[in-house]
Amino acid sequence: MLSSLIRFLPVTTVYAHCDLPCGVYDPAQARIEAASIYAVTKKALANDDDTYRNRATLIKEERAELVKHHLWVLCTDFFKPEHLEKHPDLHDLFWKATKAAGETKHTTDLEHAQALLDAIDEIGKIFAAAKPGYDYDAVIKNTQLMIG
Amino acid sequence: MLSSLIRFLPVTTVYAHCDLPCGVYDPAQARIEAASIYAVTKKALANDDDTYRNRATLIKEERAELVKHHLWVLCTDFFKPEHLEKHPDLHDLFWKATKAAGETKHTTDLEHAQALLDAIDEIGKIFAAAKPGYDYDAVIKNTQLMIG
Amino acid sequence: MLSSLIRFLPVTTVYAHCDLPCGVYDPAQARIEAASIYAVTKKALANDDDTYRNRATLIKEERAELVKHHLWVLCTDFFKPEHLEKHPDLHDLFWKATKAAGETKHTTDLEHAQALLDAIDEIGKIFAAAKPGYDYDAVIKNTQLMIG
Amino acid sequence: MLSSLIRFLPVTTVYAHCDLPCGVYDPAQARIEAASIYAVTKKALANDDDTYRNRATLIKEERAELVKHHLWVLCTDFFKPEHLEKHPDLHDLFWKATKAAGETKHTTDLEHAQALLDAIDEIGKIFAAAKPGYDYDAVIKNTQLMIG
Amino acid sequence: MLSSLIRFLPVTTVYAHCDLPCGVYDPAQARIEAASIYAVTKKALANDDDTYRNRATLIKEERAELVKHHLWVLCTDFFKPEHLEKHPDLHDLFWKATKAAGETKHTTDLEHAQALLDAIDEIGKIFAAAKPGYDYDAVIKNTQLMIG
Amino acid sequence: MLSSLIRFLPVTTVYAHCDLPCGVYDPAQARIEAASIYAVTKKALANDDDTYRNRATLIKEERAELVKHHLWVLCTDFFKPEHLEKHPDLHDLFWKATKAAGETKHTTDLEHAQALLDAIDEIGKIFAAAKPGYDYDAVIKNTQLMIG
Repeated sequence: MLSSLIRFLPVTTVYAHCDLPCGVYDPAQARIEAASIYAVTKKALANDDDTYRNRATLIKEERAELVKHHLWVLCTDFFKPEHLEKHPDLHDLFWKATKAAGETKHTTDLEHAQALLDAIDEIGKIFAAAKPGYDYDAVIKNTQLMIG
Repeated sequence: MLSSLIRFLPVTTVYAHCDLPCGVYDPAQARIEAASIYAVTKKALANDDDTYRNRATLIKEERAELVKHHLWVLCTDFFKPEHLEKHPDLHDLFWKATKAAGETKHTTDLEHAQALLDAIDEIGKIFAAAKPGYDYDAVIKNTQLMIG
Repeated sequence: MLSSLIRFLPVTTVYAHCDLPCGVYDPAQARIEAASIYAVTKKALANDDDTYRNRATLIKEERAELVKHHLWVLCTDFFKPEHLEKHPDLHDLFWKATKAAGETKHTTDLEHAQALLDAIDEIGKIFAAAKPGYDYDAVIKNTQLMIG
Repeated sequence: MLSSLIRFLPVTTVYAHCDLPCGVYDPAQARIEAASIYAVTKKALANDDDTYRNRATLIKEERAELVKHHLWVLCTDFFKPEHLEKHPDLHDLFWKATKAAGETKHTTDLEHAQALLDAIDEIGKIFAAAKPGYDYDAVIKNTQLMIG
Repeated sequence: MLSSLIRFLPVTTVYAHCDLPCGVYDPAQARIEAASIYAVTKKALANDDDTYRNRATLIKEERAELVKHHLWVLCTDFFKPEHLEKHPDLHDLFWKATKAAGETKHTTDLEHAQALLDAIDEIGKIFAAAKPGYDYDAVIKNTQLMIG
Repeated sequence: MLSSLIRFLPVTTVYAHCDLPCGVYDPAQARIEAASIYAVTKKALANDDDTYRNRATLIKEERAELVKHHLWVLCTDFFKPEHLEKHPDLHDLFWKATKAAGETKHTTDLEHAQALLDAIDEIGKIFAAAKPGYDYDAVIKNTQLMIG
């Protein structure tokens, strides 16, 4: 999951995923888990069985942690100083998105689930811009298909 | 991660991911980890530092487990009897693919890493056929981009 | 947890557990967790304290995941083409059993817990047949003793 | 995984596994992982491929942690003051066994792997004595069968 | 997480944490998680929202497991025969403390959360005595500050 | 592990740890794991046994992940907009520190391990300033004691 001491030295090497680095990153990982949170929330709102709602709470808890983990890896390992120069609000976007993930745990509320998806999409678009050829629209399309 | 006793009863309901079910599945999860295995293997072949190669071994171990987990979830939770009717070799494909994931742990060998990607792609295409509108080609394109 | 590309090559080598392979497999692992699900379900049915029932839900969630994991490992790593030839319904039994594990998450229902134990026992008997000297009846006896 | 404040109060209730308590415990869980350590060690001694030996090291690391976890759960959750009265060296046996698990990580040495199995067996026999009807000999027989 | 076969041999070497051994241990790890249990319990008692209380249950479950894990590591890996000679009730203190951790899962009850903190503090003081210069009072002060 | 959508709304509520929020945070968690990395590195440099060095590599891998996790939780859940106003370089410090954690995986090099400790200490001091009464110097003293 990690990377190099870029901030300490004037390196130009590109470091990446899993800290070897393997160079494989994909914001789809965060979006898939966030779509799961959205879908679970939607279903729990339409079901008042106790076991069902308890399970929704624990699944959201788990999935929100996964969203945060995938975002933190992108932030720490994929993005480098040159990206931060182009997008000075990058750290703030990650902060907002990981806090939004936490927020989905507190309620059974579609608005929070949607806010999380939106926050991830802001990051996804910057990722795509930094990785020419990467199709983030397809990621949105594929995951929205599951939410229905 | 799971689902219903479909084989016991003549159900027609669609069950899905994480067992609530949330209905969110995506073969991209398996392909991203397999791409990581491919990339790690490629880099380890070009680097004879001991720490580097040891880390490659342990990252492949961990990533191969994730590939298997994501495939098992697809197999158990997404696919249903009607898919098996259309694709009688479905179980065999999953067996082959999860065994291929195990195989990437044994060596530092691009051929095995590629065989795993190919086995996942066979499943990905069946998934796309079962989920009209899902774009598996974009998944291949996005993940191949990282492998370079 | 895993093994070799048996389906790709006409190998005769026996591969096994944890992918080294270490050769150690035991269906007792799945049955112990399933017995835990049965016992938790039984106790939750007799207790209407909220915390107790919530905890039962989350313990079943966790134990069912462990059951599935242990079964998947047996399926992918222990069983080989020659077993499949003798037991052509082997993949189907695993599919049924892992789906049965998922089903125990949805309700607090002894029937589902029992169905899971039964599904595991079908596999356990095939395992014992493939491993002369292995005493699966003792596994059933030992775990049933805990359920009381 | 756990239980009640038995030492604080003169309780007579029986508490058990996973802390609900579900009442399901089985020393087979520790012995299966220890058998895996023995088997991995034996195979690594006969193989000088680097990847193979590195993987043996990490598998032993992981399996030894599982052994310790299963033993700790037995110690904290299954055993109660009345057992300690009958077996005043019980805590010492667990200490010895978990330290023996740690020892298997340090070397590739069959003697340490065997010492771990022996330490677990001492506990297994006390468990069987505390649980009339439990067949620990069958557990030994089944797991030894895998080691070959 | 571990250590050496001290009980088998008349060794005098000091073994330690993570089994390498790295020698780094700190009872603060257990106290931080126990403080979290106390704080969660306090907040849940003052909040009757269903999602909130369900989350409290699952967070206590998870944190209590972490407390037990950190205590078990201290017990197995840090403490050695010479400590047991000086503190013959050491094993009993650990048994009591890990059982107290389990007890916090069963209820939403500040008394149990406090009993866990007290049990950890008994161990923390013995740890400090065994490690001249270690300031356990600062650990108490820092973690109590969070509980408010 | 997480918190509220602070950036979306002009809230003044304080949110905290584990997302309930429980309010319990402690930079000691990150420093303990980083001290472990330092100690493991130091010992591995003085030992050329293969198993020992392989284990050092995998322990550093695991501990560095824990460091990053603990830092990310502090960053996302403890710190709030008012802290960022006072310390505009806060995000950058976290970025530097998590990248430093990744760097310790790449080599067996005390300089990197020390750089990680230093980066955590910068954050620890800001944490202490934000939490009057918190004694970060004691954390440094306690953990340095283990490194020797």
